[in-house]
Amino acid sequence: MTGNRIGLFTEIEKEIFYKIILSRRDVRRNFIRKKISNKVLLRILTAAHHAPSVGYSQPWNFILIRDRNSRLKIKESFSKERLKSIELLAMDKERKRKYLDLKLEGILESNLNICVTYDHKRFGPYIIGRMTIKEAGIYSVCCAIQNLWLAARAENIGVGWVSIINNKDLKRILKLPSPVKPIAYLCLGYITKFEVEPDLQSQNWLSRLDLEKVINYEQWDGGNSLKDWEGFNQRLTRKNA
Amino acid sequence: MTGNRIGLFTEIEKEIFYKIILSRRDVRRNFIRKKISNKVLLRILTAAHHAPSVGYSQPWNFILIRDRNSRLKIKESFSKERLKSIELLAMDKERKRKYLDLKLEGILESNLNICVTYDHKRFGPYIIGRMTIKEAGIYSVCCAIQNLWLAARAENIGVGWVSIINNKDLKRILKLPSPVKPIAYLCLGYITKFEVEPDLQSQNWLSRLDLEKVINYEQWDGGNSLKDWEGFNQRLTRKNA
Repeated sequence: MTGNRIGLFTEIEKEIFYKIILSRRDVRRNFIRKKISNKVLLRILTAAHHAPSVGYSQPWNFILIRDRNSRLKIKESFSKERLKSIELLAMDKERKRKYLDLKLEGILESNLNICVTYDHKRFGPYIIGRMTIKEAGIYSVCCAIQNLWLAARAENIGVGWVSIINNKDLKRILKLPSPVKPIAYLCLGYITKFEVEPDLQSQNWLSRLDLEKVINYEQWDGGNSLKDWEGFNQRLTRKNA
Repeated sequence: MTGNRIGLFTEIEKEIFYKIILSRRDVRRNFIRKKISNKVLLRILTAAHHAPSVGYSQPWNFILIRDRNSRLKIKESFSKERLKSIELLAMDKERKRKYLDLKLEGILESNLNICVTYDHKRFGPYIIGRMTIKEAGIYSVCCAIQNLWLAARAENIGVGWVSIINNKDLKRILKLPSPVKPIAYLCLGYITKFEVEPDLQSQNWLSRLDLEKVINYEQWDGGNSLKDWEGFNQRLTRKNA
């Protein structure tokens, strides 16, 4: 353990951690052909498997997909869903035009696809914490996905999460048993570069909210608190904070 | 950016990252009185706010709670839910005995509580990716929670996620508007030490699954694949992997 016997991290180590957090991107392009080695993949999956889980239920599975036939079918599912999404924008020509310019997946170009699933039956039915909040097991899977994503970034590997996909198609193509639910479909691969800002920001789809807009003090205030909680809000609004 | 112009991390930096991932714990005890400074809290929340989100919708809010009255009410909600959970174990005396020994929250002893919420209306109704997978916005909030958790670990601060809590009580106590959904109730604070293994493991509730049990090749195999995917499975089963 770094630091001392209780495992304290130093200022320099914190700084490295924040660099990883801030430079992680949702990557859908610029993939190169370099293969992800088994050694690196193992480290990334170990990070995912060390996520927190409600009642220690570890309800995740990682389906590693290299097979081109499966990927072609999944790409087909994406293409159908994309068309449906575009139809929803029929009345909004400006957004539709922008949407058509967006690259939203790298299913075929990336080196590896991973489908992350949720298994409600694992260690069940009695799971501590999940008796009260039924969806908590799914939340655990998402924590594992974020661990995987950050580990990939640390390994200089891009990850894109494809949400424009039909889960029924995924279940059929990947032969998931009926109680197992797909949560994420991820595309991983080395890339030519990590972008400085998210694609949806650089392409003027949406911008990052100011942090103070998502912070509330003591109770819900919609991020519009007039309270200056011991100078915290002031510090927040400083541009170089 | 560390490394070179495309932001590559070095082997030493990766190692630090994995130490943070592997030493993160779900913390419910050993809190000390030391206050989390505004500066540190700001860094942790910045990490959370830099999570990925479906269609860049950033649907999270962070409600910071120091008020003792609110916390007492929330603790009361926990206590009621805990009793209900114990009742479910009435027929299983061994597990009931173990359950009674578990410390499952640090609501009052921790320095700060944070309720993380999901706002379905933000930037909506048209969110890229969420038109296909409705729950994807909640998944984004979970990614933010995991960023927060890891940042806190890097800052040597313990975090515990309290799932034994009634969301209706939370909404009432924290005055959440009806479309806003609480996703996590977190307790943060400095602690005397980070445990080497998860409490639920050291107290023999459940054990960590072997990694190979949650990895599937090309399609669902329930972690029981006989396929040796280019030596990957072999490497996995090596104890020192």
